[in-house]
Amino acid sequence: MADLPDKRTAPIDWYLAVVEAADLSDKRYGIKGMNVWPRYGFRARRNLDRILVREIEATGSEAVEFPALIPANEFAKEKEHIKGFDAQVYWVTRGGLSELDVPLVLRPTSETAMYPIFALWVRSHQDLPLNVYQIVNTFRYETKTTRPFLRVREIHFFEEHTCQLDEDRATDRVRSNLDAFARMAGAFCLPYLAVRRPDWDKFAGAHYTIALDIPIGGARTLQIGSVHHYRENFSVPYRISYETATGGRANVHQTTFGLSERLLGAIVAVHGDERGAVFPSEIAPYEVVIVPIPTATARAAIEAATRELADRLARAGLRVFLDRGEERPGAKYFRWELRGVPLRLEVGGRELEGRRASAVDRLGTRSTVALENLETEVAERLRAFDRELMRRAQVAFRESFSVATDLSQLNGSTRVRVVGWCGSEACGHEIEKAIDGALLGVPEGTPPAVEGPPGPCIACRRSDGVRWAFAAQPI
Amino acid sequence: MADLPDKRTAPIDWYLAVVEAADLSDKRYGIKGMNVWPRYGFRARRNLDRILVREIEATGSEAVEFPALIPANEFAKEKEHIKGFDAQVYWVTRGGLSELDVPLVLRPTSETAMYPIFALWVRSHQDLPLNVYQIVNTFRYETKTTRPFLRVREIHFFEEHTCQLDEDRATDRVRSNLDAFARMAGAFCLPYLAVRRPDWDKFAGAHYTIALDIPIGGARTLQIGSVHHYRENFSVPYRISYETATGGRANVHQTTFGLSERLLGAIVAVHGDERGAVFPSEIAPYEVVIVPIPTATARAAIEAATRELADRLARAGLRVFLDRGEERPGAKYFRWELRGVPLRLEVGGRELEGRRASAVDRLGTRSTVALENLETEVAERLRAFDRELMRRAQVAFRESFSVATDLSQLNGSTRVRVVGWCGSEACGHEIEKAIDGALLGVPEGTPPAVEGPPGPCIACRRSDGVRWAFAAQPI
Repeated sequence: MADLPDKRTAPIDWYLAVVEAADLSDKRYGIKGMNVWPRYGFRARRNLDRILVREIEATGSEAVEFPALIPANEFAKEKEHIKGFDAQVYWVTRGGLSELDVPLVLRPTSETAMYPIFALWVRSHQDLPLNVYQIVNTFRYETKTTRPFLRVREIHFFEEHTCQLDEDRATDRVRSNLDAFARMAGAFCLPYLAVRRPDWDKFAGAHYTIALDIPIGGARTLQIGSVHHYRENFSVPYRISYETATGGRANVHQTTFGLSERLLGAIVAVHGDERGAVFPSEIAPYEVVIVPIPTATARAAIEAATRELADRLARAGLRVFLDRGEERPGAKYFRWELRGVPLRLEVGGRELEGRRASAVDRLGTRSTVALENLETEVAERLRAFDRELMRRAQVAFRESFSVATDLSQLNGSTRVRVVGWCGSEACGHEIEKAIDGALLGVPEGTPPAVEGPPGPCIACRRSDGVRWAFAAQPI
Repeated sequence: MADLPDKRTAPIDWYLAVVEAADLSDKRYGIKGMNVWPRYGFRARRNLDRILVREIEATGSEAVEFPALIPANEFAKEKEHIKGFDAQVYWVTRGGLSELDVPLVLRPTSETAMYPIFALWVRSHQDLPLNVYQIVNTFRYETKTTRPFLRVREIHFFEEHTCQLDEDRATDRVRSNLDAFARMAGAFCLPYLAVRRPDWDKFAGAHYTIALDIPIGGARTLQIGSVHHYRENFSVPYRISYETATGGRANVHQTTFGLSERLLGAIVAVHGDERGAVFPSEIAPYEVVIVPIPTATARAAIEAATRELADRLARAGLRVFLDRGEERPGAKYFRWELRGVPLRLEVGGRELEGRRASAVDRLGTRSTVALENLETEVAERLRAFDRELMRRAQVAFRESFSVATDLSQLNGSTRVRVVGWCGSEACGHEIEKAIDGALLGVPEGTPPAVEGPPGPCIACRRSDGVRWAFAAQPI
């Protein structure tokens, strides 16, 4: 196998090469931007989904599934929403040999599929809150260059949709979603930004949007999800109302929380290195790979011992792969490093004799594991690996930002810029032009890389109502 | 809530009423035959999928996922296959505001999506066998009357696709799939038939098809899945070939194994009774429901005790629901019986005093559970419930069949008929006409309800090459 491109100087080439060589996505399918999830990549996706399900269900959300097709008339009910999606949806117009009376949209997101049914499910205040989520694929007729996980036409998607009694409860749900994402991001070892998008960049139909952005090198950021407060914007056209405790009627306030396979792209982009992917242990298709180092005299004993180790780890609930292939150990090291396995155990004659295994984690830390304590010591190594992965990611995260106080500093920036912004749209667009990217918006909480309050607006120089904001080049 | 229709005299009405009242599927969505999976029904589906995944992965199959859309040109490559599906696929013809150059088919099944990629994945005999499966939704433009789970337009679908070295290995894979299904059916407590379909009724493009049929009352049967041997029928047009151990080239032999949400329909139809659904414990959304029976003096103690019981059962890995609603206990019993929960625990003042719970399983068996052994005793009750459910299903299964020796007996039959058949297509069609249904085909192994070999063909009266076959009314 050839060397990977340099991550620092050719990040896109490096990313594409890792995704392909590590068998995470196969983009040779006959439709551009619709990629195949091969066996190894599917395992990573399944682990990712498991974390999303665990954390969202811990907040009382329940799984549902709505159809993939939406009748054109339902799709058009919320005017801003349809405007936002009109140019990028797939239309089903024929069934069998005949034209359909009503064309159908392949869901780009599920508001318009779910809300006519929510109107039936929600009758009384006792039916609230309604917190449901689904994990499905969504479809967008993407015209820009597609990239595995980052910009695709069939998107593996998590979407929570909720109905709340009133605006405040909906705001609470937004908070709860952000807390749930914080726990998910912990499992992914991914530092991130929660940013309130400017009005001109919010989700089609939303009252406001808090986006989840990840810096991925230079001034570039990747939006991997978002939480929206809809107020009554959808409940009015879709008539989702309820009988209040006092016998009146009120419209629900709604929220949504969306995440996509971009998360997997972010994990590859943030943690990967010159040797390939690096997976946090909860995401890794295999947490541990065992490589036997056969010797002329101890071949059978080593084979038996490594099988037993693999069995023990599997029984302890770990995802383990015993690589019994014919290649040299070095070729196996190379492959499993490329594929990002957190921990490798090597067992040769010396190890067998000493009742131990040599352990090497994906960040290069070497240690020795006593076979009698195999399960606990391996679990400990994985925890230490995750901690170190998070520590490194946090260092890189903090170094991704720098404050800019003059528009001229935005041009050609190699960092995400933290700027003072007065909140006006005109200044926002000036900032966007200067960085040749976007004003991500105002952070929830204190942004990284700053001390104290912002100075004047970087564009108009006014000091009134100025807040910290991020300027970046979203990909 | 109104009474359910009578299962024996109005089976379809009964079925539709149970599916709706038990909240298994919501068919009020804006497209006929595309139904919503509500919270309760989704839980059953998730449990069902978990069993499929467990059993197929135990045979070495790995999960993948291929795109939902298939370019028209790939779809048309295998001639029999496209003929079989032409009239019942959905076509995507527009993306955004423009017509697509190549129309796309929403997958009705995934042969034509997967096999161009299999041709890239399989290079050498070392890449074989390739055993992969996916659980996705498939789409059929169904023109017949739709029924939740039984005939829908968006179908929750399990499909395994494999490539084998040669015809014999492919035959072995068919066997292995049938063995895996036997284990799945054990978890569903569903007796079934494995039947080799006559040539005129095999899957489009298959060398042969073994269908999995379930008798569901009268002469009616429900096909819930099938296993196909494709020989080289697809590998030739899709060029899936490999370098043999001796340096030559050969085409792979392929198999597929498909199951659908019809399984859930079969579980409802077979096990359900006059009080609603009855779920085997592995499928049940909740295995145990706990109903507190509050008394004036012990309300708080009963509440605390039932919470603790629920926690203990959840920690033991059981799916448990503590019903703390305001209704009377009787209303709760009614609802959870309708929803098919295997075991109900009742805890009132007397139970609390005696450190026990009253247990009633969904088949009516009452017992007492000592709280100190709660986890093991509940697990035991669930095992006993599953055994009894299977026993009853087997009794009903055996009673579903009777031998017919004359075509006149097929008319208006209230059983699935076991008949002698010479194997000719002409006789097959005569039998089908007589029963106003289908010749399901020849069973794998000995059919139920027969002793010894068949007599002459029920249609032509010849004795040459006659085998037992089933005649039924598939729905």
